[in-house]
Amino acid sequence: MNPRVFEIPVSLIREMASRRRPSSIDLGLGEPSLLPSREHFEHAMRYVAEHGVKYTPNAGDPELREAIARHYRYPQMDRAENVCVTIGSQEAMYVALKTVLDPARDELLVVEPTFPSYSKMAALQGVAVRGVAMRAQDEFAFDAERIAAAVSARTRAIVICSPCNPTTRVISQSAADELARALEHRAGEPVWLIHDEIYREQSFVDYAAALAQRYPRTIVTNSISKSNALTGLRLGWLLAPADFAAQAIKVHAWITSCADTFAQQVALHVFSSRGSVHEHASWYRRHRLELLAALHASGLRFIAPEGTFYAAVRLPDGTPSLAAAHELIERYDVVAVPGVAFGASMEGWLRLSWVAGAERVREGIERIAAYCASKAVA
Amino acid sequence: MNPRVFEIPVSLIREMASRRRPSSIDLGLGEPSLLPSREHFEHAMRYVAEHGVKYTPNAGDPELREAIARHYRYPQMDRAENVCVTIGSQEAMYVALKTVLDPARDELLVVEPTFPSYSKMAALQGVAVRGVAMRAQDEFAFDAERIAAAVSARTRAIVICSPCNPTTRVISQSAADELARALEHRAGEPVWLIHDEIYREQSFVDYAAALAQRYPRTIVTNSISKSNALTGLRLGWLLAPADFAAQAIKVHAWITSCADTFAQQVALHVFSSRGSVHEHASWYRRHRLELLAALHASGLRFIAPEGTFYAAVRLPDGTPSLAAAHELIERYDVVAVPGVAFGASMEGWLRLSWVAGAERVREGIERIAAYCASKAVA
Repeated sequence: MNPRVFEIPVSLIREMASRRRPSSIDLGLGEPSLLPSREHFEHAMRYVAEHGVKYTPNAGDPELREAIARHYRYPQMDRAENVCVTIGSQEAMYVALKTVLDPARDELLVVEPTFPSYSKMAALQGVAVRGVAMRAQDEFAFDAERIAAAVSARTRAIVICSPCNPTTRVISQSAADELARALEHRAGEPVWLIHDEIYREQSFVDYAAALAQRYPRTIVTNSISKSNALTGLRLGWLLAPADFAAQAIKVHAWITSCADTFAQQVALHVFSSRGSVHEHASWYRRHRLELLAALHASGLRFIAPEGTFYAAVRLPDGTPSLAAAHELIERYDVVAVPGVAFGASMEGWLRLSWVAGAERVREGIERIAAYCASKAVA
Repeated sequence: MNPRVFEIPVSLIREMASRRRPSSIDLGLGEPSLLPSREHFEHAMRYVAEHGVKYTPNAGDPELREAIARHYRYPQMDRAENVCVTIGSQEAMYVALKTVLDPARDELLVVEPTFPSYSKMAALQGVAVRGVAMRAQDEFAFDAERIAAAVSARTRAIVICSPCNPTTRVISQSAADELARALEHRAGEPVWLIHDEIYREQSFVDYAAALAQRYPRTIVTNSISKSNALTGLRLGWLLAPADFAAQAIKVHAWITSCADTFAQQVALHVFSSRGSVHEHASWYRRHRLELLAALHASGLRFIAPEGTFYAAVRLPDGTPSLAAAHELIERYDVVAVPGVAFGASMEGWLRLSWVAGAERVREGIERIAAYCASKAVA
């Protein structure tokens, strides 16, 4: 068998999830707990009754591609030809990495701490990966100078998840400008920026930057998974300059052929109904305020989330996060994801999600605070 | 960018499809023209109303995995753990090839003529591919001796599509036994058989073999796309021995995470409703008879289909199939796929599909016969 496959370790995040008990307070969840709007599905059902569920073109339904491009209106990628509809943002990222990077010579730079999938996908393709870690003392703020300084002669692409899972930071407009300038002015072959925008609709600050508005060689991946509580629908997209999109569509065609026609109709209804992409935004704003109140009351050290539905909580100094996560499940019946799952730079932290409902989130935070207090005393 | 991506040519089949006019008789279609049963979708809608559309485990909904394994009851792969639910059979094949083949040393053997996706997928991964062509004088019958003789020391996997797109042949039980014995008795590292069973429910002979019943190192790919007119739903699976499936699930997890939860519920209803996998089988049997009558009446040379919804038609000697397909569109307003799209071994043939409706199929065949007659005279 392919040794690169054997080398992939089992996901730490999934491993934690599998230890959950029925009684557990699950703050490890990585998906919305809301139900999606039924009207999007009813539209898709009407479509199926009339047309069946035939293949769409490889790149996706032309009307959906157009709707996505027009919704975001990014410079140089505001037309249907700039869109490849994919199996969630995950396949969009896989396709982006496969298209942009030559395993024989190129290197991917991953801005950390971050979700481990980018480096796993690159490793699966035999592509060299390097991480550049944002600093805990800056609360993991995106540091453009630090990112630009980490670009080597072999770096052909940089992945940035903003709003960031797990740090909850967003890249600011000034940091994005600084990064774009640095990349444009450097000598050597150009570098692509891949912006994972999956938490775009869970952004709680007014200075969040869309890299595609500032740097022409940007590839955007996104989906309706988080914005519309449709994680299981697996409907996402890649947005890119037309030349790049044309190549990416070939890769997508040979991996999955095309996205689910039913799911594409659900997405078309979301993009055709005014405000639907933002239909859950107020829920997240409200619950973030409840989270902040619970965190402040707990005495825990944390980063106030700029985006996403996570919170990054600091463990007492010297506490390994994996041991902490295990002890929290065994003794406190709370599931949290150890920071080390997102790279060495997040050792000593936990990632909590706050989608389980305000009462359970508050109770979970109190238990984590009790655990931390016991460690601090010891 | 990745040179392997640039090297992928545009699909000849898609290229022919794009030349279709509104008036054209389209015998290039690669998907059923039937509508799917509404009840499967209504079940999925009820599920979504109650549960939303959350992620399933990477390998798929446990109940669906169990239902698929039990339906086929292949030796050594009759349990849920043997199933990985995928984005159509296409992703199942991509995952199978990615899991089984080490690009640094292994080679894939493709039994030709066949759908070009297998070699395109392997090329995308930098895996060496060799074809072994069945012979036109045998009407492309699967020849176990010829396949076994083509296995080299580097061959780690053989792909067989049976019933075969485009030859319409099925591998017989005796040929399958002969191939299994040859592979079991050869020296050196073992070889996997990958059986693309996508046209399993369009099989019209009683000697069709399931390779998984005869050879323990078989990986099966399939979907409900063709059996239930659900091509656009993108719901397929990989069936394999448990050790292999566990590795394949890791690959699938990092490419697409999991299949669409809604589509999985549609599939669960198909597998839970007695006879639903075969619900369109009688339609195909009936239309095959009409096809055979039309072909006989036309005077064309053809292979009587053992399976699939295609027919392989022989052009007059010396007629290049690509030129023929172009002339058929331009002058006869009929779309057919040139044999050369399936490898050099099928040069001089056309692939027709017969799902467009009996009248249009008959009319299309008459036009092709007129074209062939004009060539034979010239």
